[in-house]
Amino acid sequence: MTLAYFDHNATTRVDDTVLDAMLPYFQQEFGNASSRHGYGIQARRAIDKARKQVADAIGVQPVQVIFTGGGSEANNLFIRGAADSLKPGHLFISAIEHPCVLKPAQALARRNCDAWMLHQLAVNPEGQVDLQAASVAMQTGKPDLVSVMLANNETGVIQDVAGITELARFHGAFVHTDAIQGLGKVPVDFSSLNVHAMTLSAHKIYGPKGAAALIVDKRLLLKPLIYGGGHENGMRSGTENVPAIVGFGAACELAQARRAETAQHTARLRDQLEAGLSHMGAVIFGGQVMRIPNTCYFALPDIEGDTLVVKLDRAGFAVAAGAACSSVNPGQSHVLNAMQVDPMLARCAVRVSLGCDNTATQVDGFLRAMQRIVAELRQLSGISL
Amino acid sequence: MTLAYFDHNATTRVDDTVLDAMLPYFQQEFGNASSRHGYGIQARRAIDKARKQVADAIGVQPVQVIFTGGGSEANNLFIRGAADSLKPGHLFISAIEHPCVLKPAQALARRNCDAWMLHQLAVNPEGQVDLQAASVAMQTGKPDLVSVMLANNETGVIQDVAGITELARFHGAFVHTDAIQGLGKVPVDFSSLNVHAMTLSAHKIYGPKGAAALIVDKRLLLKPLIYGGGHENGMRSGTENVPAIVGFGAACELAQARRAETAQHTARLRDQLEAGLSHMGAVIFGGQVMRIPNTCYFALPDIEGDTLVVKLDRAGFAVAAGAACSSVNPGQSHVLNAMQVDPMLARCAVRVSLGCDNTATQVDGFLRAMQRIVAELRQLSGISL
Repeated sequence: MTLAYFDHNATTRVDDTVLDAMLPYFQQEFGNASSRHGYGIQARRAIDKARKQVADAIGVQPVQVIFTGGGSEANNLFIRGAADSLKPGHLFISAIEHPCVLKPAQALARRNCDAWMLHQLAVNPEGQVDLQAASVAMQTGKPDLVSVMLANNETGVIQDVAGITELARFHGAFVHTDAIQGLGKVPVDFSSLNVHAMTLSAHKIYGPKGAAALIVDKRLLLKPLIYGGGHENGMRSGTENVPAIVGFGAACELAQARRAETAQHTARLRDQLEAGLSHMGAVIFGGQVMRIPNTCYFALPDIEGDTLVVKLDRAGFAVAAGAACSSVNPGQSHVLNAMQVDPMLARCAVRVSLGCDNTATQVDGFLRAMQRIVAELRQLSGISL
Repeated sequence: MTLAYFDHNATTRVDDTVLDAMLPYFQQEFGNASSRHGYGIQARRAIDKARKQVADAIGVQPVQVIFTGGGSEANNLFIRGAADSLKPGHLFISAIEHPCVLKPAQALARRNCDAWMLHQLAVNPEGQVDLQAASVAMQTGKPDLVSVMLANNETGVIQDVAGITELARFHGAFVHTDAIQGLGKVPVDFSSLNVHAMTLSAHKIYGPKGAAALIVDKRLLLKPLIYGGGHENGMRSGTENVPAIVGFGAACELAQARRAETAQHTARLRDQLEAGLSHMGAVIFGGQVMRIPNTCYFALPDIEGDTLVVKLDRAGFAVAAGAACSSVNPGQSHVLNAMQVDPMLARCAVRVSLGCDNTATQVDGFLRAMQRIVAELRQLSGISL
C-alpha cells in the first residue's frame, strides 16, 4: 500500500482532465490523421488543437512543434538531426545532461566518419554549469551545436540557459535545451531562453507517456531520425499517436493554468521536508541555488540510497535513488560525479520529487518513517561493527 | 455520419478488451517501469506480460521483442540499425515497401560516407516480388541486408518472404520483413519465414497507436536509433509507454484468438464486394494472387480515386485512395507504378480494407452508394465533354 507517491520527476499520474480529453480518440474518433475521410479529418483537427496548446505553453507558433513518441526521441532528434545537417564540428553538452542527450552525443563522437568533437561543460559543486569555464572552453573548440538542460532531473538545479545561449551564439552555434523537468514547474519561454530548439514531454506534467515534442526555430537545419510517410513536416514519420498527442496538449494547458499554484504548493512541502531532513543531518544537493520547486535530492552520509528506497517503499513512500531513467543501468550518478560529490556520499543519494497531489501530512509521515528506518539501519550497522 | 469504416489497413478502433487492459495504467498503475518502488515494479510486470503476449503471437521468445513507439520507428531501427552494425554493402528492398522502409533505405544510399548500395526488387503486374529476377539481381550485387514486406498495405498481396529469405541467406544476408499488415489476418510465424527481424504494430490489430515492435534474432547485430537510459536491452531508450505496450500485448492475444474467424468473415465480405465491383467494370489489383483476406484495391477506369473517396465519405463510407500513410504526400502510388499499372488507371485506385465489425449490409450499402456516385460522375463527365 502506497501512502505517498514522491517520484514525480520519473513520471506522473495522468490527470483526470487529460484522460477525459484522450478517451474519445481510442474508440470513437480513432482515425488515422493522414486519412482523407471524416475519421482522418477529426484526428487531424485534434492534433492541430494539441499543437496549438503545446505551442502556447512556451510562446511559439504551432508550426514550430515536432511531435515525437517521447522525450528521449526528441533529444536524439536534435543531437543527431542537427549534427547530420552540418559539417562535423564541435558539440558542447553539460556534464549533467540526461543519458538521452549524453549517449547520442557520445555516439556522434565515436563515429568512423563524420565524427564530432564532444566537449562536456563542467558544473560547480552546487550542480550549476560554470559559465566562466564554458566561456573559456568555447574559445578553444568553437561550438557548432550546444545542448544544456533547463533543470536537472536529479538535483532540480536550474541552469542559466540564456547565459549559455549568449556565449554559444557568439560563435554561431545552434543551441538546444532539454526543458522536460522545467515545464509546469517554472515559467518556460522559448524566446527568452533564446534557444534554437527545446524538448518537452507529456508524462512529466500529468500527461500520458508516448507524447513529447522537439520545438524548433525555423533557422535550425534538421534531418529526421525516423524517415517514412513525411509526417510532422517530414521531420518525424509515423502514424500520429492521436490520443497521446491530445493528452499532451491538455496537459500543457493544465500545466500553464496551475503552474504558479503548484510551484508554491510543492515549494512549501519541499521546505518542510528539507527542514526535517536537515535536522536529521542530511546533505541537500544543490540546496544553495535555484531549483525547480518540487525536487529534493539528499543524502544521509551513512545510509545507502538503494537500501533507503526499498525500505521507504515498504513503508509506503515511493522515492528514487538516482534518476529512474537510468535505474535500469544502476551505478554511480554521473550528475553527482560531475558535482565532485564524494563517491561514498553519492551512494547515499535519494530523490524526492513532489507533485500537486502531495500533502503536508504525507511529508510528515515520510519524515517519521525516515527517522524509524534510519534508526533501524544505524542499529544494524552498529551490531555488525 | 459514417455508416461504415472500411479503412482498417490505415488504423483500427481500439477493441473494448484492449482498452480495458490499458486503462489502469494511466491513473492507478502509472509508474515508470525503471523505478524501483512498487509503482515501477507493477509497470515492469505489465510490460513483461505484454512482451510475452507479443512474442507468443509469432512464436518467439520474449527477449526477442524490442518495443518501439511505432511501426515506422521499428522499420527505421532495422534499416539504419543493422546497416550501421556492418560495413557498407548492398541493401535490397522490394519496390513496393512502405515509405518507412523505402525512405530510410534511400537515406542510407545518399550518405556522404558509409553509403550503401540500394537495390529495389521488381514485382510482377499482380504485385508479387519476382523471385527469379531477385535471384539474378542478388548474383550481381551480393546482398548484405534485405527487407521485404509480408503483405502490401495497398494491394494486400502476400509476398513469398520465405522464398526471398532462402535466396538472401545463400549470400549471408540478414533479412527483415515488415509484417504489420499480415498480423491478425494470416498466420505469422517468425521461424517459418526464417527471417532475422520482423516489424509488428498494435494499431492495425485493434490495439493502440504508439506501440510497435522490432522482433530480432539473436544473431542480428543492431545499433539503436534512440540512445539514452538503455531501455529494451539498450536497443531503444526512453520511458516505456506502459498503457500502449499493455494494449499491444492484449491486441496480439486477441488477434491470435480470433484470426481464423476474422479472416473468414472479411474474406466473405471482400468476395461480396469484389463481385459487385467487377459487375461495375472495376479492375481489382492483385486480384489473381494470394492476398490478406480483408483488402480490396480497385479502380473504375474513368473515375478518379480522390473524387470517389470524398464522395463516398459524404455518403458515409470511409475508404482510402492509395495508402493513408502517404496521403500527406499525395501523388501516384509507387506500388501501382512498380506493378506497371497505367498511370491513368492508377489515379483511379481506391482501397477498401475490411475489419471484424463490418457487415454484409454495409457492403451492400457501399455497392449501392458506388453505383449512384459513379452514375452521377459519369453523367457530369458526359455533360462536360
